[in-house]
Amino acid sequence: MSLAKVRQAGESVVTINVTPFGVDGAVDVDAYGALVDRCVSAGIDVVTANGNTGEFYALDRAEQALAVRTTVSVVAGRAVVLAGVGHAAHEAAAEAVDATGAGAHGVMVHQPVHPYQSTEGWVAYHREVADAIPDHGVVCYVRNPSIGADAFVRLAEACPNVVGVKYAVPDPIALTDIIRVVGPDRLVWSCGLAEGWAPYFWLSGARGFTSGLATVAPEQSLALLHRLRANDFSGAMTVWQRLRPFEDLRARYHNALNVSVVKEALAQLGLCRPDVRPPISRLSEAERAEVRTILAGLGVGAPAAA
Amino acid sequence: MSLAKVRQAGESVVTINVTPFGVDGAVDVDAYGALVDRCVSAGIDVVTANGNTGEFYALDRAEQALAVRTTVSVVAGRAVVLAGVGHAAHEAAAEAVDATGAGAHGVMVHQPVHPYQSTEGWVAYHREVADAIPDHGVVCYVRNPSIGADAFVRLAEACPNVVGVKYAVPDPIALTDIIRVVGPDRLVWSCGLAEGWAPYFWLSGARGFTSGLATVAPEQSLALLHRLRANDFSGAMTVWQRLRPFEDLRARYHNALNVSVVKEALAQLGLCRPDVRPPISRLSEAERAEVRTILAGLGVGAPAAA
Repeated sequence: MSLAKVRQAGESVVTINVTPFGVDGAVDVDAYGALVDRCVSAGIDVVTANGNTGEFYALDRAEQALAVRTTVSVVAGRAVVLAGVGHAAHEAAAEAVDATGAGAHGVMVHQPVHPYQSTEGWVAYHREVADAIPDHGVVCYVRNPSIGADAFVRLAEACPNVVGVKYAVPDPIALTDIIRVVGPDRLVWSCGLAEGWAPYFWLSGARGFTSGLATVAPEQSLALLHRLRANDFSGAMTVWQRLRPFEDLRARYHNALNVSVVKEALAQLGLCRPDVRPPISRLSEAERAEVRTILAGLGVGAPAAA
Repeated sequence: MSLAKVRQAGESVVTINVTPFGVDGAVDVDAYGALVDRCVSAGIDVVTANGNTGEFYALDRAEQALAVRTTVSVVAGRAVVLAGVGHAAHEAAAEAVDATGAGAHGVMVHQPVHPYQSTEGWVAYHREVADAIPDHGVVCYVRNPSIGADAFVRLAEACPNVVGVKYAVPDPIALTDIIRVVGPDRLVWSCGLAEGWAPYFWLSGARGFTSGLATVAPEQSLALLHRLRANDFSGAMTVWQRLRPFEDLRARYHNALNVSVVKEALAQLGLCRPDVRPPISRLSEAERAEVRTILAGLGVGAPAAA
């Protein structure tokens, strides 16, 4: 059943696919499919089309629909497929209907980009999407610190098929307090800030984390998950320390390099072109060299010069 | 010529139209047109379709196109018409071509919503839009404090038809420093934070300001502009003080009420329904009473109970 699957997906490495572009600038479907297959073959059990690492806001609707279909087709039942949806509420609802109709198990609702939001309006926004796909699981993505416990309580009451939250506010203490109010069982919580915050959010009650690194080095992300699941926090922090250079480079310049680092790494592995679309840009030569060194340190890619 | 007109528009009250909705939830074209006509008849010389006060992010493309056409048709040459464009760069470019083809004088580029941005990518984003309408003026809307002077210098070099900036970072000192580096003449600067920050941004070099209030009480916004233009800062601050209750209410709850207050005021004046779309919501009864009192204080609408 979709709801249970999507809920369970929140307790794993929630991989966010990149969207590779070809020489002509269009979505490179073959490279896209090969990247998804590589992840799933390595043991990843949740893939997300059209997340932020997939440059959701730089894709048009036809490209987003193509990304969902490519993901569903390549995964072929081996993993849970989530589709990012967003924009105006009625558009997000239509995208959700399209994605689940095409075989996605559920949707991840991007944080509304409207610069003004009320708690009531935020709940109404998600309800419009959730009500459009009542038999499918919905995860909401929260980057706004003003979305507090009361908002989640009202969301949970209004939308039975909202099963999880991808929490991406860099404040694990706030998350602890929210989960205490909402209760531990109604929603599943994932760290929406990837490996860098995953151990801290785990302490607060999150049981999974999103990941762009998993598209590059899935075994590293899974190693972190397995140690956290085993309550081996010391081991988890050892893995975490090993992953930090990659995540720190992504975070540079207010996260300007977030996607570009992942695509550059994949390019160095020969898996896709490093091209990104505005408003982000390719890495400098110096940054590309940093990626090379980091990949060697992770044991993937060509070894750095001795 | 469009470029000169759009540039000049930045030195005025840049009114941002609301998008009224009918009982059925669709855009109410008749109310929309009547509101635009009321503003222009009162002396407003710049109107913007599809700004944030117009709930840009809650409209789909067809609704945005309808808003532009309604505005152009009603204005009928009496004012400068700007159209907000956004989303993926290639979509924003297509929207710009459509809007100027329909008669808008120029476009206002919403800040890219992509959560990750580099300076180079930010410039490339605007260039993609500007290059699509080389004979029309482009204004960029900046809400991100990390867009600094170097970004504006590069933007000005790359895009000859970017003529202005709607600066909406609540930091007038940063604006002073940016204008010093970019130079006073290449771009025209408007305060993108409406009447509340207009006098402060004026000191920094802005020569116009955006306004939602102007859709409700255009004579008040024009009074502020005229005093600023006359270098009557004491008089300007007297007007500013009178407008503050309206702007302060809009700003409440992290700006959650920004649009809802304007629509409620227009509803109390019998000009449109107060309905807004998610992720914002209607005012509470207590807030509606506040609007009633504020309108009476501004000398518009029914007098408050004695």
